[in-house]
Amino acid sequence: MSGSIITQKKIADAFKQVLYQSDLESITVSQLMKQAKMRRQTFYDYFLDKYDLVNWIFQQELTEIINDNIGYRNWKDILGLLVEYFESNCHFYLKVLSYDGQNAFKFFLKEEIDQLLQSLLISAYKSKDKNIVFKSHENGLYCRILTNGLVETVTEWILSECPIDSRDLSRYFIDYLNHFISS
Amino acid sequence: MSGSIITQKKIADAFKQVLYQSDLESITVSQLMKQAKMRRQTFYDYFLDKYDLVNWIFQQELTEIINDNIGYRNWKDILGLLVEYFESNCHFYLKVLSYDGQNAFKFFLKEEIDQLLQSLLISAYKSKDKNIVFKSHENGLYCRILTNGLVETVTEWILSECPIDSRDLSRYFIDYLNHFISS
Repeated sequence: MSGSIITQKKIADAFKQVLYQSDLESITVSQLMKQAKMRRQTFYDYFLDKYDLVNWIFQQELTEIINDNIGYRNWKDILGLLVEYFESNCHFYLKVLSYDGQNAFKFFLKEEIDQLLQSLLISAYKSKDKNIVFKSHENGLYCRILTNGLVETVTEWILSECPIDSRDLSRYFIDYLNHFISS
Repeated sequence: MSGSIITQKKIADAFKQVLYQSDLESITVSQLMKQAKMRRQTFYDYFLDKYDLVNWIFQQELTEIINDNIGYRNWKDILGLLVEYFESNCHFYLKVLSYDGQNAFKFFLKEEIDQLLQSLLISAYKSKDKNIVFKSHENGLYCRILTNGLVETVTEWILSECPIDSRDLSRYFIDYLNHFISS
């Protein structure tokens, strides 16, 4: 891991801590960097403002869980990790999603889940030796519907403060996708 | 149809007409009722303001297509009617969804689609004589994921100005749901 990413992650962790005492709107960069035990100016070496940092957290952490694992880990494990990650970061997501209107978050999450499901559908069809060559347009739209089902449901779950256990939610998601790859 | 619903529908039609020349924010009740050829005061007999009228249109028209048809028409026909309805009302939905942040719209549409899918899943399982008694909680969450896939995708489709034909989109939706009721 490069030095800059370590610094960015430290700032992100400090930001999540500060969010326990303050709301997103009232947090200042000075307050954040005091928590991170770094010079205030260092923040601006990496981010434009706190909203840029929030988008960085979405993108960085979702990519690490999903995109970086595609091809290495089983899709069920990846989904499980993702839902667990949201559960342990529930406070952060509750605070930023209530403010953000969820647009940037859903945008990144849809991109990532779309990639995961594209790779899943392709390998499922290959393994059945069905010799189906999807029209990329058709495959794309099916994936999109599936992706939207997952992204919207996980967002609702976060916004209702994770009322059911992450393992139960993952199981529902896996059953849901299994209908598509096994039928 | 009662006299009051006829009046409300006339006001709704006039509103959709006026939206062709004006934006939601700038429309006045006077302008709207002039188009409807009715006294300005009549508007307030039925609606609090124009946003209340928009919510009435969502709720009234979605209920007429979905809820009023459950048990009478085939679910595939209902889905087809719904997507066709959005296509022919694309201009109205584009204008109000860009303004509204989509929350009220998605709320009503999710309620309606949820009811449709609950009835669909129940009758699909009955007809297979599988004798499965769903735990209502489980059935509810599966329906919710399916509903969210449809609602989010149709909203994206409207906001991109209906790039594919409504019949093609319905076919995707029907295939998508068929995976669940046939596997």
